[in-house]
Amino acid sequence: MARQTLAQQVAAAITQQITDGALRAGEKLPSLREYMRLHGHSKNTVITAYEHLAAEGLVEARHGQGFFVIKRVATVAEEDEALPYNRALDTIWMMRQQFVRDPGHSHLGEGFPPVEWLMDMRLDKFHRQVVRAGVTTLFRYGTRLGNSGLRARLVQKLAGYNIAVSTRQLVTTLGANHGMDLIIRRYVMPGDPVLVEDPGYYPLFGKLQLQGARMLGVRREPDGPDLEALEQLIKAHRPKLFFLQSIGHNPTGSDLSPAKAHQLLRIAETHDLLLVENDAMADFKPSSAMKLSALDQLQRTLYLGSFSKSVSAALRVGFIAGSKQRIEELADIKMVLHNSGAEYSERTIDVILGEGHFLRHLSRLQDRLRLATARGLTLLDELGAEVFCRPEQSLYLWARFPGVEDSNALTRHCLGQGVMLAPGAIFSTQPKNIVPWTRLNVAYLDDPLFGNVIRQMQQKA
Amino acid sequence: MARQTLAQQVAAAITQQITDGALRAGEKLPSLREYMRLHGHSKNTVITAYEHLAAEGLVEARHGQGFFVIKRVATVAEEDEALPYNRALDTIWMMRQQFVRDPGHSHLGEGFPPVEWLMDMRLDKFHRQVVRAGVTTLFRYGTRLGNSGLRARLVQKLAGYNIAVSTRQLVTTLGANHGMDLIIRRYVMPGDPVLVEDPGYYPLFGKLQLQGARMLGVRREPDGPDLEALEQLIKAHRPKLFFLQSIGHNPTGSDLSPAKAHQLLRIAETHDLLLVENDAMADFKPSSAMKLSALDQLQRTLYLGSFSKSVSAALRVGFIAGSKQRIEELADIKMVLHNSGAEYSERTIDVILGEGHFLRHLSRLQDRLRLATARGLTLLDELGAEVFCRPEQSLYLWARFPGVEDSNALTRHCLGQGVMLAPGAIFSTQPKNIVPWTRLNVAYLDDPLFGNVIRQMQQKA
Repeated sequence: MARQTLAQQVAAAITQQITDGALRAGEKLPSLREYMRLHGHSKNTVITAYEHLAAEGLVEARHGQGFFVIKRVATVAEEDEALPYNRALDTIWMMRQQFVRDPGHSHLGEGFPPVEWLMDMRLDKFHRQVVRAGVTTLFRYGTRLGNSGLRARLVQKLAGYNIAVSTRQLVTTLGANHGMDLIIRRYVMPGDPVLVEDPGYYPLFGKLQLQGARMLGVRREPDGPDLEALEQLIKAHRPKLFFLQSIGHNPTGSDLSPAKAHQLLRIAETHDLLLVENDAMADFKPSSAMKLSALDQLQRTLYLGSFSKSVSAALRVGFIAGSKQRIEELADIKMVLHNSGAEYSERTIDVILGEGHFLRHLSRLQDRLRLATARGLTLLDELGAEVFCRPEQSLYLWARFPGVEDSNALTRHCLGQGVMLAPGAIFSTQPKNIVPWTRLNVAYLDDPLFGNVIRQMQQKA
Repeated sequence: MARQTLAQQVAAAITQQITDGALRAGEKLPSLREYMRLHGHSKNTVITAYEHLAAEGLVEARHGQGFFVIKRVATVAEEDEALPYNRALDTIWMMRQQFVRDPGHSHLGEGFPPVEWLMDMRLDKFHRQVVRAGVTTLFRYGTRLGNSGLRARLVQKLAGYNIAVSTRQLVTTLGANHGMDLIIRRYVMPGDPVLVEDPGYYPLFGKLQLQGARMLGVRREPDGPDLEALEQLIKAHRPKLFFLQSIGHNPTGSDLSPAKAHQLLRIAETHDLLLVENDAMADFKPSSAMKLSALDQLQRTLYLGSFSKSVSAALRVGFIAGSKQRIEELADIKMVLHNSGAEYSERTIDVILGEGHFLRHLSRLQDRLRLATARGLTLLDELGAEVFCRPEQSLYLWARFPGVEDSNALTRHCLGQGVMLAPGAIFSTQPKNIVPWTRLNVAYLDDPLFGNVIRQMQQKA
């Protein structure tokens, strides 16, 4: 794309915020001084940008008061603030941004491993075996619980994690996100308090907002959730559900410690709390990694798995493991909402898991990840960054850079230089908060562009 | 399977009703006399069945009062009647029944065409082309709106129906049911009134129950919804949304008349009603068949399409067409709930639609359907059945048989003889109503077993 002037970039960024509803009609833009301070631009740049927006009829200058977003005739948000869609607008805006993928950019902000890391599992190789399953698999709706061959294989996979289940304790889903939605639809009513980790997985926040839940953020520490904060929230709000990630936590890359896992289960028992363990990163970690569900054996836990990040996100296959009763009910919700999962994709995953090559694939994936993590940590040290924790192998690192108080500003700066970041505010239950942290995808940390941008920034400061 | 005695079958049917919550703890079973009358069994059969249930600890005899379902310690339904899951229990029970497929049985009650009708589209043939699309399609999440190649093809498909859309007015879904759910999540709040057809598509009812909507049933007539009843419901409840099927209506097989379509759109305009046109049967009808969205050009309509019944239900691909604004918002909800659709499956459908063979497939499908419909109507005439309407080609016929007042009883009788039916009560917004009608899948009407069962029943009466 043709390089825009800095003022044009600022104007474009604000226009986007107005279009997407992040800046609402009637709201005041930051003062020139504030904008300069927050983003490190010159006064001239900001004035030029604001005047451009005024000329486009998007904002108006009010004498002595500053610039305001012009009221539009009737925006969705004004019609009915309470509609689920509007409750989730902040997350929608952030997720839309994440989907904008510019081919020329470095993808440090992505949540996904590089396709090159997955390609050795050649999906087309397995096609013949998939077809051999017979016409029912190819043409018909699947069953409520999901493909039985795949579920039998998942029993073995979970046994490898020391989680004992029967096939009746497993329901397939259209990915881990679908699993979260089924759980929310089963257990959460509008207005219900629900515990989440903060920072945490923001597409989960969007789903909870859609359902009208009240999110209670529990601070994530390098060894797991802050249990004191958790107990206070439980006493104040009596929530029944806590969504968390034990290992390879998104965005911090941290792992739950055994001691905290044990204490957390005791707290859950005392307060009758159901723990939803999102383990989408399982295939990126040793099978011995600490899992709540292995301690608890699915009595107070639901276990969410996914193949999106280790095989293919294009197939849409994940699963939930839990008690027989809970799985029956979640399968019912799945049936009512979608009739069934993608039988064809489930059969494909079944074939892939059955290949000896799959274990080699995982082993290679983890080797790559360990190498990338170590290199990433070295680079971050060189750049003088503070890291939240130092995992042995994690797709994400959570870091803050000297002099950076607002990672939104850092993100905008880097975007101008062709580097996409995932700023910390995205992962906060309070997205308006100013967060100094940034999530970095270790697979892309070796791109020299990023290091150069940070070094230049530091030299200027 | 080994044939059970009749008493065992009765006991098993009641056990299932208790397990699934259709018969709740504390409820009284029908008296022996009632049960005999309703189901046409002998007194001995019913007594043996009830005693078997008592011996299993499921029911208890109370002196002089009859048999009662024993209270269990804590059932889900008792915990909290207001939870979405419990609101949808009736539909869940019915859908579970529909999923029970006994290989030895005739499948007259199924909603799906025979696999043999679909097999000429050999899915495996297209695999090479699917893979050729490149690694992104194979491994990555899809985009918010869905695969762009498929959407470009859908533009052409809809143009063939005289519905003009751009690719920005289309969002792919994981089947038509997913499309309905996205629409419900966008527009329906708990307690909101929503118009549906009665009889109508019961998985839709389940989704509305889950969301806590108030369903308003509009009587379906052979030429479309009862517009007088519709206007009265609108005046009394001020609903904003109406789900309906213009053509090949499920379960009645009826088509909307042009005059009613025109009037319905005027009513929608007067009362600011959004019409959701579920056109899952489009591929079973000529492209010239009357569609609301062709009259209205998607101003007050959302159009739901699916490939589940004409290509494969195992791929889970459908779509919604609508105004750009509505589609943007529905794509946002899809993104928040599921990240994306099944890119791999979407690409497969794209390749299939691009094949010249696909049009021949549809033409053959419709030829088969026309033949089966004509034969089915002849058979029903011979059996003295009353049919709701006489379509030229429809997967479903809606019929009632002489002497049958309750098609639930007919269904149970037929099940004992190896014939699965879809009783009318399933499709009612009031499932406890006694309905004489039955939905019949024309593809299976030529099974002589069914005719014999009905004739024997009539000879007995």
